[in-house]
Amino acid sequence: MKVSELGEFGLIELLADIVDKAKNPENAPWQQVLIGIGDDAAAWQTDSPIQLGTTDSLVQDTHFDLSITSWEELGWKVIAVNLSDIAAMGGVPKYALVSLALPGELETDCVANLYQGMAQIADEFGVALVGGNISSAGKTTITATLLGTLEDASVLRRSAATPGDQVAITGYPGLSAAGLRMLKQNLDFGIQTSSLLREAHLRPMPRTKEGQILLKQGVRAAIDVSDGLIADLAHICKASQVSATIKENLVPIHPALRSNFKADCQQLALTGGEDYELLFTASNQVIAQVKQAAPCPVTVIGEINDGMPGQVTLIDNAGKSIPWQQGGWEHFKSEA
Amino acid sequence: MKVSELGEFGLIELLADIVDKAKNPENAPWQQVLIGIGDDAAAWQTDSPIQLGTTDSLVQDTHFDLSITSWEELGWKVIAVNLSDIAAMGGVPKYALVSLALPGELETDCVANLYQGMAQIADEFGVALVGGNISSAGKTTITATLLGTLEDASVLRRSAATPGDQVAITGYPGLSAAGLRMLKQNLDFGIQTSSLLREAHLRPMPRTKEGQILLKQGVRAAIDVSDGLIADLAHICKASQVSATIKENLVPIHPALRSNFKADCQQLALTGGEDYELLFTASNQVIAQVKQAAPCPVTVIGEINDGMPGQVTLIDNAGKSIPWQQGGWEHFKSEA
Repeated sequence: MKVSELGEFGLIELLADIVDKAKNPENAPWQQVLIGIGDDAAAWQTDSPIQLGTTDSLVQDTHFDLSITSWEELGWKVIAVNLSDIAAMGGVPKYALVSLALPGELETDCVANLYQGMAQIADEFGVALVGGNISSAGKTTITATLLGTLEDASVLRRSAATPGDQVAITGYPGLSAAGLRMLKQNLDFGIQTSSLLREAHLRPMPRTKEGQILLKQGVRAAIDVSDGLIADLAHICKASQVSATIKENLVPIHPALRSNFKADCQQLALTGGEDYELLFTASNQVIAQVKQAAPCPVTVIGEINDGMPGQVTLIDNAGKSIPWQQGGWEHFKSEA
Repeated sequence: MKVSELGEFGLIELLADIVDKAKNPENAPWQQVLIGIGDDAAAWQTDSPIQLGTTDSLVQDTHFDLSITSWEELGWKVIAVNLSDIAAMGGVPKYALVSLALPGELETDCVANLYQGMAQIADEFGVALVGGNISSAGKTTITATLLGTLEDASVLRRSAATPGDQVAITGYPGLSAAGLRMLKQNLDFGIQTSSLLREAHLRPMPRTKEGQILLKQGVRAAIDVSDGLIADLAHICKASQVSATIKENLVPIHPALRSNFKADCQQLALTGGEDYELLFTASNQVIAQVKQAAPCPVTVIGEINDGMPGQVTLIDNAGKSIPWQQGGWEHFKSEA
């Protein structure tokens, strides 16, 4: 059945039912919901004095291409990119609101699958999907807003990097961009690698637990890698009024990237976007503690200096210093 | 200059600057902001145990037509429609997040004017614009999320109407639909009426103060009129599992509507959408108190009955009962 046949209110009922059936009532935020989907606004109780809020959209033909992504993956991803922003503050994600703009000729099954994907990741990360809105549009735009809390008054900011800090990153950057290239060029790397790269691009796992660990261990400066490692490090440097030096040979390269993208693996790791790893800066000692506590690889890749605010310098494999000019993904200006 | 020439990050700086210059630091929410535009998420302090959240989008060619609206009016309206949802819960609006999807060929002045409009209404209603996101897209979609609080545990819900309640409405419904018709058909009613109707459609004043008064005086069931008076009353009836009867001759008709839309004025008042008036139900006594306390006209137009859940019956000027079948605005299904 098409969305135009079911209509706005029928669709809202269908989606509310999916959310209701998928919800895990033991997740704390669900227990604090007073009014969920179906009223003018959602209402919930909070006992935390500090609230976090972020919003992010996935726009058809800008962020996603329906020939290489499923609707379920889209649902997962739109919540994931918002969870990642909460992770980059060290917060605990709690409530999500979703605004959908979509064509009436879309099959309702597509929208149902989209919501299944959202409900899945919401359940996995303990988030309650409490409300939203649906409009008709020529192309699909999915906007999610995520609300979270902070356990105490400390927070991870972009503006807290200090000269002398080490720069570190969780996991392996570049896998998402490699996945996108694989999907667009229809490359085949065998089941295991292909599935790893596809998941990296279409079902990213935001580092919410890791963000909370960073904060607890004393990290104060962090960002999530959405525009690309160097571009996002430049955001930290600009906000903190410092510069940074990255050693190319320290940047962790996943074996699947090294063996299948030999010529480009370092380029992908340095500039590929949408990895949703956490990039952060802290003292040697704090980073040592983070390495102990984090459930994922944490790698030191450079340091924060007192140079020109916003400048990132790459020391390449031959030991040559390259002041980095070009950023990663930027809307309107460049192609990824 | 085009957005594509300025780029995403340049545009964010421009908009953050507009918000910063327009903000009234004496508004309470601004004093509680810890992190505003420019980090991964916004952070703010709250001392209220109950939070409200709502989201709504304006989609180009679905909700707005750039040939009859200015960018400033669009900015006003996207925040207004969300404020109206908070008003319909009896809440206090506090924080807004905005996600913009727009074409690179747009002039940056348009986006700046959009933000001027948002900043204006945010200031007028004591809301802090704390964050957002910008993406490129073929057409413009503007999504705002509004967070608010409740003063105590009571709230206005759609599901709280009870048989025996009177049905009442604030202000004069139909003015927005009349304004849309005037703008689309390029009608001229003289400066005063034309400006009244244009404002009703493009710069609606959400009833936040009135929503709080309703709640304080003991009203428990309310909705804002966005789909049309009867359609929204049907939403209340469905959620409350009751029916309602409306007397056509009780529905308040604004003089400007009566004199300029003689044949259609009642139709416009009953089915026109986007009025953002509050439609509510309560006992005679509570409504008498609301009339005393509210700064706007409040008119009783019918009552809640024990009939078929969701059914709204109109008693027309001749005293004939008409069970209402057709709704007002519904995405995908009908035209306004």
